[in-house]
Order: sequence, then structure tokens, then C-alpha cells
Amino acid sequence: MAERDEERSAGRQEEVTVADEPEVAVGGAREDADSARELAERLHDPARVLALSDGVFAIIITLLVLEVHVPELTQGHTLNEALRELRPSLIAFVISFILAGMYWVGHRDLFALIRRTDRGLVWLNILYLLPLCLLPFGAGLLGRYDQEPVALRIYGLLLVLIAFMRVVIWLYATNRPHLLWQRLDDRQRRAGLAINLYPGLIYLGAFLVARSAPGLSLMIYAAMPLLYFLSITVLRGSRRRNQEYADFT
Amino acid sequence: MAERDEERSAGRQEEVTVADEPEVAVGGAREDADSARELAERLHDPARVLALSDGVFAIIITLLVLEVHVPELTQGHTLNEALRELRPSLIAFVISFILAGMYWVGHRDLFALIRRTDRGLVWLNILYLLPLCLLPFGAGLLGRYDQEPVALRIYGLLLVLIAFMRVVIWLYATNRPHLLWQRLDDRQRRAGLAINLYPGLIYLGAFLVARSAPGLSLMIYAAMPLLYFLSITVLRGSRRRNQEYADFT
Amino acid sequence: MAERDEERSAGRQEEVTVADEPEVAVGGAREDADSARELAERLHDPARVLALSDGVFAIIITLLVLEVHVPELTQGHTLNEALRELRPSLIAFVISFILAGMYWVGHRDLFALIRRTDRGLVWLNILYLLPLCLLPFGAGLLGRYDQEPVALRIYGLLLVLIAFMRVVIWLYATNRPHLLWQRLDDRQRRAGLAINLYPGLIYLGAFLVARSAPGLSLMIYAAMPLLYFLSITVLRGSRRRNQEYADFT
Amino acid sequence: MAERDEERSAGRQEEVTVADEPEVAVGGAREDADSARELAERLHDPARVLALSDGVFAIIITLLVLEVHVPELTQGHTLNEALRELRPSLIAFVISFILAGMYWVGHRDLFALIRRTDRGLVWLNILYLLPLCLLPFGAGLLGRYDQEPVALRIYGLLLVLIAFMRVVIWLYATNRPHLLWQRLDDRQRRAGLAINLYPGLIYLGAFLVARSAPGLSLMIYAAMPLLYFLSITVLRGSRRRNQEYADFT
Repeated sequence: MAERDEERSAGRQEEVTVADEPEVAVGGAREDADSARELAERLHDPARVLALSDGVFAIIITLLVLEVHVPELTQGHTLNEALRELRPSLIAFVISFILAGMYWVGHRDLFALIRRTDRGLVWLNILYLLPLCLLPFGAGLLGRYDQEPVALRIYGLLLVLIAFMRVVIWLYATNRPHLLWQRLDDRQRRAGLAINLYPGLIYLGAFLVARSAPGLSLMIYAAMPLLYFLSITVLRGSRRRNQEYADFT
Repeated sequence: MAERDEERSAGRQEEVTVADEPEVAVGGAREDADSARELAERLHDPARVLALSDGVFAIIITLLVLEVHVPELTQGHTLNEALRELRPSLIAFVISFILAGMYWVGHRDLFALIRRTDRGLVWLNILYLLPLCLLPFGAGLLGRYDQEPVALRIYGLLLVLIAFMRVVIWLYATNRPHLLWQRLDDRQRRAGLAINLYPGLIYLGAFLVARSAPGLSLMIYAAMPLLYFLSITVLRGSRRRNQEYADFT
Repeated sequence: MAERDEERSAGRQEEVTVADEPEVAVGGAREDADSARELAERLHDPARVLALSDGVFAIIITLLVLEVHVPELTQGHTLNEALRELRPSLIAFVISFILAGMYWVGHRDLFALIRRTDRGLVWLNILYLLPLCLLPFGAGLLGRYDQEPVALRIYGLLLVLIAFMRVVIWLYATNRPHLLWQRLDDRQRRAGLAINLYPGLIYLGAFLVARSAPGLSLMIYAAMPLLYFLSITVLRGSRRRNQEYADFT
Repeated sequence: MAERDEERSAGRQEEVTVADEPEVAVGGAREDADSARELAERLHDPARVLALSDGVFAIIITLLVLEVHVPELTQGHTLNEALRELRPSLIAFVISFILAGMYWVGHRDLFALIRRTDRGLVWLNILYLLPLCLLPFGAGLLGRYDQEPVALRIYGLLLVLIAFMRVVIWLYATNRPHLLWQRLDDRQRRAGLAINLYPGLIYLGAFLVARSAPGLSLMIYAAMPLLYFLSITVLRGSRRRNQEYADFT
């Protein structure tokens, strides 16, 4: 049967089962080549990259709430008043939660294309998680100082960095067909690039106007999640049902 | 053997192995159709949705305890007294822990039915996690201000939102047979709906009476986990052993 | 080939592939029975129980460190002095970390025996996680008030509750052979019971003497991890290499 | 067909499918031996060790940011000034994040070689996670007291302990070929040892000079991640593309 048992995920099996593989395993040189190839496949397996990423995303969206503190009533004001002061924190929580959700969905869509991870992709993914991990800090800052340009700029900077890393990962992965389940055509690559790039440009705008028009900057941060859902609905509606491409929006 | 190696979970294999599939893979058009289908299957794989959800649940039930603070002894009172003041926090922790456990069991039961996730289900699941992530905040609030109507109302509102999202997800998934391992009959769908809906209605009641009868509201929050275990025991006892349906209770 | 694609873990496949299963799948009644059985198997799959538990364990051992606070230098004393005051917290961290590690190893060993989880086992596992989640609180309390009987008693109580839940889960699972990969004989069941029960009894002792002899109580908590490693080494040395049983120690 | 259903990961299947296994399963003694072997394989499965480790790594890299506090504006100074005071915390965060990323990549590379975990390896891995879990504390300390020799020494001590545990795990695993997918030759073992040992020695140096030359010590901590990326690039460039060994750098 020659079914190799060293595989953990079926994907690694490709080179072993393709074409006219002889039914009976032969020892010696054949085995050496096999085991080298299998080690390479294990080193390229995306499983733990996804486990780490999902863990980080899960922690980020739950850490966000840690910035919504249970108020301490000290100077005689009521709990109602104290909770009203929490409102900006709560809004920053909801916005950042939806943003983190969008990033996670995007990450999942991207890695649905990826069959192998090389060292470059592993490290790009880690560097992508870096600004993402600062999102709870940025959200806490924005929640407490939502009128302060510097808080708006830091939040915007984080979002620009995240968008930048997404674009870099997209270009890196789609330029290396051996990392993908299937080669993407140019139209698909451009579409994926646009989806990752445009939000980054808008956040760059919000970052740049934070000093001169803090209200506009804040509005952009609040409006983007709504725009995201709106654009998904529009884009999906304008495409045929069975077109795989529609799934990236 | 034509065993496709692109599959990660066996579930994706269905369309490939069904019926009278030729034993030898044919290249060209056949492969294109295959790879489009396989991409679609990877995009619909629930694995990462479950990984994210389990991560969030694990964090929530452990974050709950962060609201049970190690007391600082400042004004000369003993540790015993300080710990006695922690009692409401501890009770809120236990109630919320059991609640989170109930939600996790419900989530696991639901996703045992689901074979594929589409974009709608992925986002509904994220929006379900949103009020869930606020549960530690609500529990902390309730633990510190267990007599305050506003704390009771916020806690109730979170539970109502969670129940609402559960009902929405149930209806969404069970109305889309292509997302399920097997089609549910009407009786099963109604039963699942009831299990998700009724607690929400009771919590809505607790939310509504929080201002006029805070004691009753608090009692409902405390009693629900007990009621849950009681009703499971009764429901399961009244059914035949081998009936699959009994497993949803 | 009649290889069912609905399976996620190979374990579920048993009833389908055993004995003289016909090679060609037959529709109708056969399929209905199959799909009911497969739903039952998905509902009994331990995968998500393990995912939740591993998540909780990972969070607990990292949350423990949150009680080791970076000191604030206020009243002019040096960082060296401030760090010296942290020493009890650090010791409590190390003890609790090793304890949590022991519990995780025990959990892994137990679930290596378990093939299916029913509703009872799922809930017992959640109730086992409850006192476990309070361990960081107990460790923080012990780290700050290591001379206070009440802190010693709370820490001991948590450890007794954890041991109690472990015994309950052991008895529950090993009394239900359909949940196990293979039936255990009486000697194995008694050995497993002893391994879970004895530490609980010792912690019960530490809990009981906390008021009259706090020093002894603290010493027991500190000594137990050492005893654990010692007893493992002794027990394993006294057994033959290939005896599977040795793996439980 | 004799396909065993008790397997969870394909790796466990080896002893069953190798060589001239009879096609039809024979009951009795054969089955007993099988089930004992299968239990042993389940007890040695690395899956949960990786799940726990990935969870801990995910939490550590996100907990690091908790030491970057949203500043409270009290004595009338601006948010800009308050954020400038956060700069050392932010630098400590970035350094520690990259470090944790390096450790995770190293852990992934190591466990790509490991097929089975025995009790020793499981515990060594837990003891490796212990100093790792203290990294957020060390980073917080360094971020707040970056001029204090004692903070520099504690940070260095943690890094030395982590490097020490990595060396121990490397030696333990590579000396036990039955734990590996394939036996390593001496050159590979020495290379892996060097990669784990050298950073430890450099951190030992930074630890030793922390009192006499705190600036140098701090510089070493900051420079190491850069050195790491530089040495990877150089080492990889000097090797043939298809050489599996290059993947360890």
C-alpha cells in the first residue's frame, strides 16, 4: 500500500503518492530521499503557524475588554455616571473587536491558499502579529483620550502597519507558487492586493489628518468596519454565486 | 488510488470520492475543476473557526478570575475580613464560569452539526463572541455592585445578546442544509431553537425587573445554571437511550 | 472503498470498518443509520474538550506570572529591596507552575485512554477546570500572605477540590468502557485511582493543619512537586521498560 | 483492509502497517499486543505538547504588551510627554516580542524532528516554558528600570535559563532516536547544539557585565535579534538550496 505513516497532514503526502509510485516501498537510497523530503515537508507545515496565530487573535479580542475597567466609585458619584464615562472605552472596544475579526477573517482566507510555509513566511507572519498585539494598547489609548491627536495617530499608525504587513505577506506568498495549493492568476493577485492595500491607504489618511482634523480621523476609524461589511455585500452581490473569487471579499 | 492529498480534513473529500469516481486522476479540465472545488472547501473548513472559538472560551473562563483580586490590606483590617468582602466576586465568578461552560457546550453541540462554514456563519460566530468577551466585565461589575440595578441590567443585557446571537446562528445554519453534515427535520430544528431561545427570554425578564426588583433579578442569574442541569437531567431521563436527539439537551 | 468522508478523527470510523462490512455503500436505511451514528460520534469527539483544556492550562500557567508584579519604587527604597520582597511571590509562582504542569500531564495521560466523551465527562471536565482557574488567585494570595493561615487554607482547599475532581473523572471514565480505547483491568484502575487520590489526601492534611501549624502546611505545598518527581523516578525504575502501565506514573 | 481506526495521527500507525503485515486482522493475543502498543503511541503523541506550547507562546507574546500601560494623566503633563516615558517599555516589548518569536520558531523546528514524546521530554518542555513565562515580567522590569543593573541581570538570567533548557531538550531528544522521525548524524547534532548554545553564552556575558557595564548589557539584548536575522541570512546564503540542514538556521 506504500502509505507513508510519517505524514501528519495529508498535504505532505503529495510527492510520495503522485504518478506511478511503485506499490512496495524500497529501502536504501529511496528511503533517504524520502525522509529528507518528509523533514522538509514537516518544516513547512503551516499547522503550528495557524495554531499560534489563532491563539494570538483569540487573546487579542479578549484582551481588548481588559481596557474596559470595572469602575471604582470614589468621589461619591453614582455607578450610572461612572459607566457613562466608560462609553468611549466601550466604543473603542467594539470598533477594535470588529477590526480584529476582519483581520482574522483575512488571515484565514489567505492561509486557505497556502500549502507550505517557508522561513520567510513564518517570520512575516510573526512580524504581522507584532502591531496586532499592540491593538489592545491602541484601543485603550483611543478609548481614554479620544480627542487627543496623538492617541488618534498611534491608533492609525498601528492600523497602517498591520495593513502594510498584510500587503507584504500577500505579495510574498503569491509570488512563490510552491507555497500555494494552486497558482493564482494575475486578476486574483491584483484583487487580493487591492483588498489588503486600500484599507491601509484610508488609515494612512486618518493618521495624517489626526492633528488637523481629529474628529474626521475618529470618524474614519468608526466608519471602516461598516464600510467593510457594506463593500462585501455589494461586491458579493455583483458576482456569480459559484465563482470562487467571490469568497475573498 | 486517486486519493487527493490537498485535503486537510476528511470532510472536504466528499465530492472527490463519491459515486463512480474513476480510479486514475485525469489532468487538464478535471484538475482545474478539482482545484477550484478544493479551494472552496478549504475556505469553508470550520477548523480555524473552532480554534478561535475554543481559544476565546478558554481565555474568557480564565479571565473571569482576574476580577477576583488578591486583596491589599491597608486600613488595618484582617485578611479574613478582606476575603469575606470578596465573596460576591467569587459567586459572580462561579456563576459566570458555569454560564461560559454552558455556552461552550452549546457551541460544541451546534458545530457538531456543521460541516462547512460560509462567510455569513463565520461573521455571526465572531459577533457571537463579542458579547461573550464582555462577560468578564459584566461579572466583575456584578461582583462589585451586586445591589445596583444598573450592574444587574448590564449583566442581563449581555446574556440576552448572547442568547440572541445563538438563536440567529441556529436559524442561519439550520436553514442552509449545504452547511450541515445532515439535514435536520422540523422537530429537531424547533427543539434546538427552543433550547437557545428560552434562556434568552428568562434573562430578558431578569433584565426588565432589575430596576424594580433587583433581588429577583440576581436570583434568576444565580438559579439559571441550576435550572440548566436540572432540565438536562429531566429531559434526558424522559428519552430513550439511543435517540440521538437526546444529545442536544 | 466505502471510506466515509464524514469522519474527522479516525476513531469515529470504528463501527463502519469493523468486521465484514460490505465494500459497496448501500443507500436508504443504511445511510440513515450511518448518519445518526456519525452525528453521535461527532458529539462524542474529545477534540474540542482537549482544545479547551489545553487553552485553559496554557493560560493558567502564564497568568500565574501576572501575580509577580513589576515593583513600583515609591518610598525611596532600592529596586533590590523591592525585588527581595517579591521572593515569596516568585516561589509561589514556581510551585504553582509545577503543580499546573503536573495536572496537565495527568490530564493528558487520562485522555490518552479516552476515545469518546459523553455529556457527563464534558461537564466533569469543565467543573475540574473551575478550581484550576482559581489557582492563580490562590498562588497570588499565598505569595503575598504566606504566613496567614487563611491564605494557606484557601490554597489547600483549591488543591483538594482539584484532586477530588480528578478522582471523580477517573472513576466516571474508567467505569464506562464504551468511552475508552480499551477496557482497563482492576489493577490499572486501582493504580490510577491511587495516583489521583493520594495527593488529594496529603493536601487535605495541609489544609487541616494550616491554622495550628502554618509552617508545616507551607512546607507540604513546597515539597509535593519534589515528592512527585521522586516517586515517578522510583516507581518507573522498579518496573520493566516495556510495561505500558509504567507510563501512568 | 486492516486499517486501524484507533490511530489519531498517521504517525502512530507505523508498527501496524510496516512490512508484511497480514491483510486480515487476527483476534486474541495479536489484538492485545496491538492495543498495548496503541496506548503507548497515544501516550507519546506530541499533539497536546504542541497545543500547550503554542498556547503559551501565543499568550506570552500578547501578555508582553500588558506592560505597556495606557498612561494616566495626573500632574498636568501632556499625553505626549506621558507617551515619551513609555518609550523604554515599548522598546522592551519589541525586543522581547522578537525574542519570543525566535524561541517559537526554534521550538517548531525542533519538534519537526520529533515523532514521539516520552515523559522526560514532556517535562523538559514544561520546565522550558517556566522561564519563558517569566519573560513578560522580565521585559516589564527592563522597560521600567532599563538603567538598573539588577533589572538587566534578571532579564539576562531568564534568557540564560531559556537557552540552557533549549540545549538540554536538544541533547535529550537527539540522543533518543526512537523519539525522532529520523536519526540525525553527528554534524546535524553539533549544528543544532551550537544554534541553541551560542546565544545562551552571549546572554551569559550580558548577565555578567550587567553590574560593571549596564550600557553594554542593554546593547547586547537589543542587538541579538538583529544578529539572529543577519546570521540566518548569511548562513542560508552559504548553503545549497536543497540541503535540508539549511532549514535549521
